[in-house]
Amino acid sequence: MKMKNPPVNSLSLDFLTEFSITLEKLEMDRGCRGLILTSASPKIFSAGLDIMEMCGKSAEHYGEFWRAVQEMWLKLYGSNMVTIAAINGSSPAGGCLMALCCDYRIMADNPKYAIGLNETQLGIVAPFWFKDTMSNVVGNRVTEQALQLGQMFPAPEALKFGLVDQLVPEEKVQSTAASVMAQWLTVPDHARQITKSMMRKQTTDKLVNNREADIKNFVSFITRDSIQKSLQVYMERLRQRKQ
Amino acid sequence: MKMKNPPVNSLSLDFLTEFSITLEKLEMDRGCRGLILTSASPKIFSAGLDIMEMCGKSAEHYGEFWRAVQEMWLKLYGSNMVTIAAINGSSPAGGCLMALCCDYRIMADNPKYAIGLNETQLGIVAPFWFKDTMSNVVGNRVTEQALQLGQMFPAPEALKFGLVDQLVPEEKVQSTAASVMAQWLTVPDHARQITKSMMRKQTTDKLVNNREADIKNFVSFITRDSIQKSLQVYMERLRQRKQ
Amino acid sequence: MKMKNPPVNSLSLDFLTEFSITLEKLEMDRGCRGLILTSASPKIFSAGLDIMEMCGKSAEHYGEFWRAVQEMWLKLYGSNMVTIAAINGSSPAGGCLMALCCDYRIMADNPKYAIGLNETQLGIVAPFWFKDTMSNVVGNRVTEQALQLGQMFPAPEALKFGLVDQLVPEEKVQSTAASVMAQWLTVPDHARQITKSMMRKQTTDKLVNNREADIKNFVSFITRDSIQKSLQVYMERLRQRKQ
Repeated sequence: MKMKNPPVNSLSLDFLTEFSITLEKLEMDRGCRGLILTSASPKIFSAGLDIMEMCGKSAEHYGEFWRAVQEMWLKLYGSNMVTIAAINGSSPAGGCLMALCCDYRIMADNPKYAIGLNETQLGIVAPFWFKDTMSNVVGNRVTEQALQLGQMFPAPEALKFGLVDQLVPEEKVQSTAASVMAQWLTVPDHARQITKSMMRKQTTDKLVNNREADIKNFVSFITRDSIQKSLQVYMERLRQRKQ
Repeated sequence: MKMKNPPVNSLSLDFLTEFSITLEKLEMDRGCRGLILTSASPKIFSAGLDIMEMCGKSAEHYGEFWRAVQEMWLKLYGSNMVTIAAINGSSPAGGCLMALCCDYRIMADNPKYAIGLNETQLGIVAPFWFKDTMSNVVGNRVTEQALQLGQMFPAPEALKFGLVDQLVPEEKVQSTAASVMAQWLTVPDHARQITKSMMRKQTTDKLVNNREADIKNFVSFITRDSIQKSLQVYMERLRQRKQ
Repeated sequence: MKMKNPPVNSLSLDFLTEFSITLEKLEMDRGCRGLILTSASPKIFSAGLDIMEMCGKSAEHYGEFWRAVQEMWLKLYGSNMVTIAAINGSSPAGGCLMALCCDYRIMADNPKYAIGLNETQLGIVAPFWFKDTMSNVVGNRVTEQALQLGQMFPAPEALKFGLVDQLVPEEKVQSTAASVMAQWLTVPDHARQITKSMMRKQTTDKLVNNREADIKNFVSFITRDSIQKSLQVYMERLRQRKQ
């Protein structure tokens, strides 16, 4: 699956909804056993959650948006397919989350590309299930420091801390993903799927059992004046950088 | 304790029963404070659960067998003694589990020897307490990938990922185990035992509290036609390899 | 904050009480956003819990002492401030715990300085919240072995196992701590604090919900004849070493 939401694959409400529907269709399709997640945009895997959806909108809209973020995560992290992230560019925040949901991560060996859950840098907070997803990959200590600081890891650092599994030259990201996929698909599906579910179910259940509270929590946080103000400052900075 | 069930130390029902009884006796013996677990068979530590016990037998037999596997794990992982695995050969599946139950693992530095929970390769699934035991040693990420793929780690890889603690030349495995044991036995027993129990009790309690459900789960899985068929295919392959 | 309880910053009841009060004051002070914890004593960060408080006193005294240890931990591990340990000397047992409570650890690059939870070496046991604090930093496997053996890690080993984050020459410990602090303080406070609390609350809640049982457990353990005897033997050895 090639994510295509120019220019930076922002995870807007529309994009997330379409993503979840597509994923569900592939999940039902017995002929589809694996998914390679990559980006159609050069230099960026995904810029993460679309800040436009979190700024200057109604509480109802925020709630709907957050439910779509949850849905994407539940479907991708809980997928029965083999999921491989072919990270061909930078991948902050929600983009990093998507990569962390996959079974294996291959990143372009370019120190200009960075990956991380950098929410605190924007004055916002990664929710517990972002935290759990990261901590399941790199452990508690790396997660604690990375989330507090909102660290972005350049590709070589990402490999060192286990945030990605492999670095390859940029032009080989797709072919490597294909050959890793071939290897994973040699394992009998039913045994692999039961194993994957055993490893992840406790983590997904935590959100399933707290979904409404988590939405409520997000809405009450994001509607605070101070948070809205810091998001506007951040967007202003982005706009100026573009000019 | 030298495991001796030629040719490959398969964990048969008889072997497991005897193993648990012996372990219980040693546990009671106040003169015995430590246990070095090793193999009398050259090149193989233990081949793991005996597939003959899981193939073409009655549901009752499968239940009895699984209870014996649980018993072995509860006794070895929960042992009050210092337990050291002197891994002098390959150690797939149940053999790997036994090694992971010990307090310290020394492996022969021979890249032909490999260790891992490779159940998915046979189309079966490592249960949650195999998973917990591994994850307590190498962390969640390595466990997730290794269990999904059914990876066998050659000795150098096993060391790199923390599956074993030390590699030594084959002829020094036993003497190194003895000297590591001497070091561990310098610690006051009561403090070490309380500490070990504090580290492991949560993990063993999970099985103690779900023992019957876990047996039922195993029996219903292993009696499936598709599973029986894939085990027979696997055994056929083993037989042909031997010829 | 410079700990000053000559000669070795033992964590006595008085010292712990004063520590918690000071910490609470700083916590209230909105102008104080970060805390660098270091020692005024050359060569020793803190020698840990004062054995004099655990030896030859009344059960009531032991209970009061233990409550003060808990209080220190709850306040330091749960602090809203950025906490950095500038470890300018050895740091056994309770001293190691204090360092592990911080957000970041810088240690003097001197192999003569060692750090670790070495309780079992004294015949006593690190309680579950010491264990959780360590395991949150270095993972389950390193913790299991270190606690069972009561390992002290010389500075280079401490870095290798992740017990500390950085080694610098002894004369640069303070200045490095200051510059790391400056970096952490660039993150918006409210986002960092919510994130820190999300990472640590589960761990602190476990003690909050079991505080009385934990005190009872400590008192019943420490009042055993055998434990009192082994502490006396240990103190005798310390006294002889000093002469």
